[in-house]
Amino acid sequence: MVEPRNDYDSLFRPKSVAVIGASERRLTVGHRIVRNLINMKFNGNIYPVNPKASVIQGLPAFQSIKDIPQDVELAHIIVKSSHVPAILRDCVTKGVKIAIINTAGFKEIGGQGAVLEKEIVKITESENIRVFGPNCQGIINADPDVNAYCNFTFTQPNPGYISIFSQSGGVGEIINNRLCSLGEGMRMYASIGNSCDIQCHEILQYWGDDPDTKVIICHMESIQNPSKFEQVTKDVLRKKPILWLFAGRTANGVRAVKSHTGSTENSVIQNKSELSTGTLLFTGVEEACQTARAFVHLPLPKGKNVGIITNTGGAGVIAADELTENNCNLPELSQSTIKLLKETLHPEAIIANPVDVLATAGPEHFETTLSAMIADLNFDSIVLCLITPFFVDCEEVARRVVKVIESSDKPVVCVVMTDKKQWAPTLNIFSHSDIPVYDYPETGARVLADLIKYSFKKDL
Amino acid sequence: MVEPRNDYDSLFRPKSVAVIGASERRLTVGHRIVRNLINMKFNGNIYPVNPKASVIQGLPAFQSIKDIPQDVELAHIIVKSSHVPAILRDCVTKGVKIAIINTAGFKEIGGQGAVLEKEIVKITESENIRVFGPNCQGIINADPDVNAYCNFTFTQPNPGYISIFSQSGGVGEIINNRLCSLGEGMRMYASIGNSCDIQCHEILQYWGDDPDTKVIICHMESIQNPSKFEQVTKDVLRKKPILWLFAGRTANGVRAVKSHTGSTENSVIQNKSELSTGTLLFTGVEEACQTARAFVHLPLPKGKNVGIITNTGGAGVIAADELTENNCNLPELSQSTIKLLKETLHPEAIIANPVDVLATAGPEHFETTLSAMIADLNFDSIVLCLITPFFVDCEEVARRVVKVIESSDKPVVCVVMTDKKQWAPTLNIFSHSDIPVYDYPETGARVLADLIKYSFKKDL
Repeated sequence: MVEPRNDYDSLFRPKSVAVIGASERRLTVGHRIVRNLINMKFNGNIYPVNPKASVIQGLPAFQSIKDIPQDVELAHIIVKSSHVPAILRDCVTKGVKIAIINTAGFKEIGGQGAVLEKEIVKITESENIRVFGPNCQGIINADPDVNAYCNFTFTQPNPGYISIFSQSGGVGEIINNRLCSLGEGMRMYASIGNSCDIQCHEILQYWGDDPDTKVIICHMESIQNPSKFEQVTKDVLRKKPILWLFAGRTANGVRAVKSHTGSTENSVIQNKSELSTGTLLFTGVEEACQTARAFVHLPLPKGKNVGIITNTGGAGVIAADELTENNCNLPELSQSTIKLLKETLHPEAIIANPVDVLATAGPEHFETTLSAMIADLNFDSIVLCLITPFFVDCEEVARRVVKVIESSDKPVVCVVMTDKKQWAPTLNIFSHSDIPVYDYPETGARVLADLIKYSFKKDL
Repeated sequence: MVEPRNDYDSLFRPKSVAVIGASERRLTVGHRIVRNLINMKFNGNIYPVNPKASVIQGLPAFQSIKDIPQDVELAHIIVKSSHVPAILRDCVTKGVKIAIINTAGFKEIGGQGAVLEKEIVKITESENIRVFGPNCQGIINADPDVNAYCNFTFTQPNPGYISIFSQSGGVGEIINNRLCSLGEGMRMYASIGNSCDIQCHEILQYWGDDPDTKVIICHMESIQNPSKFEQVTKDVLRKKPILWLFAGRTANGVRAVKSHTGSTENSVIQNKSELSTGTLLFTGVEEACQTARAFVHLPLPKGKNVGIITNTGGAGVIAADELTENNCNLPELSQSTIKLLKETLHPEAIIANPVDVLATAGPEHFETTLSAMIADLNFDSIVLCLITPFFVDCEEVARRVVKVIESSDKPVVCVVMTDKKQWAPTLNIFSHSDIPVYDYPETGARVLADLIKYSFKKDL
C-alpha cells in the first residue's frame, strides 16, 4: 500500500532537489550542499543552478531553475539576500513545492533585511510554495531510502531513530556531532533559522507521525504560535518523547536570543509554563543526547521502583542519591531475592538496595543478581554499575549481562566505568548489542529517571 | 635547603615500600601493587614479602618483613584479615612508619570484622605506627621524583597538579580515569577505605601544604571528625580549591553509605551545612573533573563580570543562561570596544554581550574581538565559543586565540564545538598549549562560574 504523500514529504522525502547558487568553489555553502547530496547518495535527482557554469561537481548545471526540463520538488536558495524574492518567484513558476532559503541577512539584521523577509512571507501567502528558513542550515533525512542531506553540515550522521529540531544550526551541529561520537544514529534533522513560514510545530507533527522517529530533541529560542505549538506537542508526546533543550531561560539569555534570531516576542521563557507540561527539559546538550539514547534502546519502565546493582559501593551511593533526588523509589529486595542472593554471592556482599556484589564478583554473580532483580516484582527497572577490576573476567560478565538484558522487558541501564582503551573488548560486547552504556552512575541514574518521568507524563 | 620530613612523607614519599602478601600470581592485588611500583619506576626500594617465594617479579622476596635487612618506611598489608593484627605488630617491630592495609573484611562487614578493626586501632594507639585503611586501595604520588604507585589501580595517571581523595576506590578510579582521558595529570591520590586511623583531614592538610597540588577533588561518604575537618578545610581553602563530590545527599544515599563503609554516624549529609561554607559542591564526576582542569590552567577571575564571544548565536544563548543562573553578570561592552568591533567585524555581526562574530568570522576577527574584550574593564573573564565552520581557517583562528590567551591575565574559557576527528589539527593547537578546551557552552560557562565562586569564597 502506498500512503498518500504528506505536504512535508516534499521537504524530507523530495524526489528532486535544485541547488540555486550551487558552486564549484570549495568552502562555500553552495558547494557543500551539492557535495553532501552526492556523497551521502541522495536517492533523487540533483540539479545545480548557476548562471555561470554548465557542469558543477560532475552534474549538468542550469542557468535558471526555469531551465530544468524535469519537475523540481525542493529547492535550496543560496543567492544574495536581495535576489532571493525574485528567485523564489522563479521557484513558484517552476512548481517547486518547498524552498529552503539558506541565505542570511533577513529579519535577524533588521532594516532592509526585515523588509526582504516580509516580501518572502507575502509570496508564500499568495502562491503555492512553502519556505523553510531563511538564515537556516536546512534538513537531513538519513533514512537509507532517501539520504536527503539538504544541508551544509560537516557531520555525517548514520541512520537511526533520533530526530533533531534546532533553531540554531550551530547547536544542531553540536547535537549531531555528539550523537555521532556516541555511535548513535539520526532519523531526521531540521535547522529552521528565522522560520518565516514553516514553523516548528509543523515539523514536530510530521515527526510525531513518522514511525521511525522514536524520540525528538528540540532546541528552540522562540515560539511563534504558542497555542498551536502546545496542542501539537501534547499530541506528539502521547506517541514519543520530546527532549527540550531549554534556551533563553534567563533575562540575559532572552536578550541574546533577541539579537540572535531577531525575535522580539514569544521567547521560550514567556511560554515556559505551557511547555513544561509534557516535554522533558534540559539545559545541556550532553544530558539531552544521553537521554535520547536511552529512549531509543530501552523499554519504558512501568513504575518508579528502581533496583541498583553495583560492584563498587561508591557508585551505588551516587546512583541512589541521583535517583532519589529525581523522585524515584528504591524499595527493598523481596524475601525470595534476598534468599537467592545469600546463597549465591560472596558472604561479604551487601544484599540490600543497592546490591553490592563486590569487586570480586564474577560472571555468575552478575547473571544471578541481575536476573533475580529483574524478576523481583519490587522493581520496575534496574541500574547496573560495573567497574572493571583487573582480576575479574569482565568480558564474560559483559556477555552474561547482555544476554539477561536482551530477554528482559524491564529497562536495565548499564553504567560501565573503565579505561576505554584497556577494556575495549568488554565495551565492544555492549556496543555490538543494542544496549547503551553510560560512563557515570549519575548519568545512568538521571537517564533512567527521565524514562520514568516520561512514562508518567505521556498519558496526562 | 632540605625541608624536614613531614610524618605523611612516609606515606607519599616513602624511601622504601614492603608489600606483605606480594604475589607472582597475576590478577591478584599482591601482584598488581608490586607490578605498579616496578612499572611506574618507584624511586625507592621495593621489598616483596611472601613466606613461600624467594623471588617475586624479579625482586628478592622475604619470608617476613622482619627479615628485611634495610629500613622499611611504608608497608602494604594484603594478607587474610584475621592475620592482619599480627602482621601489623611485625611492622611495628620492624620500625615501619605507616601501614597501608588493603585487606577487606573489617568494620564494613560488622561482627568479627569490626572486632579485628578495633584491634588494629588499639595497636596504632599504643605503638609508633600509623594505619592507612583498611579495606582501601592505597595512595599514588605521581611526582616524577617519587613515582609511588602504592595502589592496585589499573589507570596510569601522568604527573600533574590535581590531587584526589576518594573514600571509595571505585569512585577514585572513575575520577582518575576521566582525568587521564582528558589528558590531565594527577599530583597525588589517596583512597582510604574504612579510615580507622589516618583521616581525611590529615591528607587534605598535607596537600594544602604541597605547592604542586593546585586543586583537590574530594569524594567522601562520612566524616569522622567534623570539627577538625571543617577547620582544616577552611585553612586549605585559603590556599587552593577543594571540589567536593557530595555523596550521601539523600536518605537512600545515606542508607547505601552505611552498608558500604560501615559508618553508622557522621554521614556527609549531617554535616552539609558546615561543609558547604567553602568547598565547591558537585554531584557528578564529569563536572568535578572539568572544573578541576580549569583551576589547574586558568588564573582566577577578579570579579563576576563575564563577556561572551561566539561564532554561533545558539551557543552564546546557552552560555548566557548558564552564567546568569550561576550568579555571574553579563555587562555591556564599553563604548571603545563597541567602536573597535564595528570597525572590524562583518556588518551583520552582533556587537553586544554575547558578541556574535558570525560563522564567517576569520582569524583577525577573533583576534581583535578577544583582545578587545580582555582589555575592556567591563569584563573580568571571557567565555569564547568556537564552532568550526568548514569555510574558515580554523587552525589559524586557534593559533591567534591561543596567542592572545597566553598573554592574558584574565581567564578565558575556550569552548570548541567540533568533530574531533575532522578537526584534530585545530584541537591539537589548543592541546599543545596550556589552555583547556570544553565541548559545550554550558560546560565552559559552569566551569567559569565555579572559578568565580571560589575566588569569592576563599577569603571568607
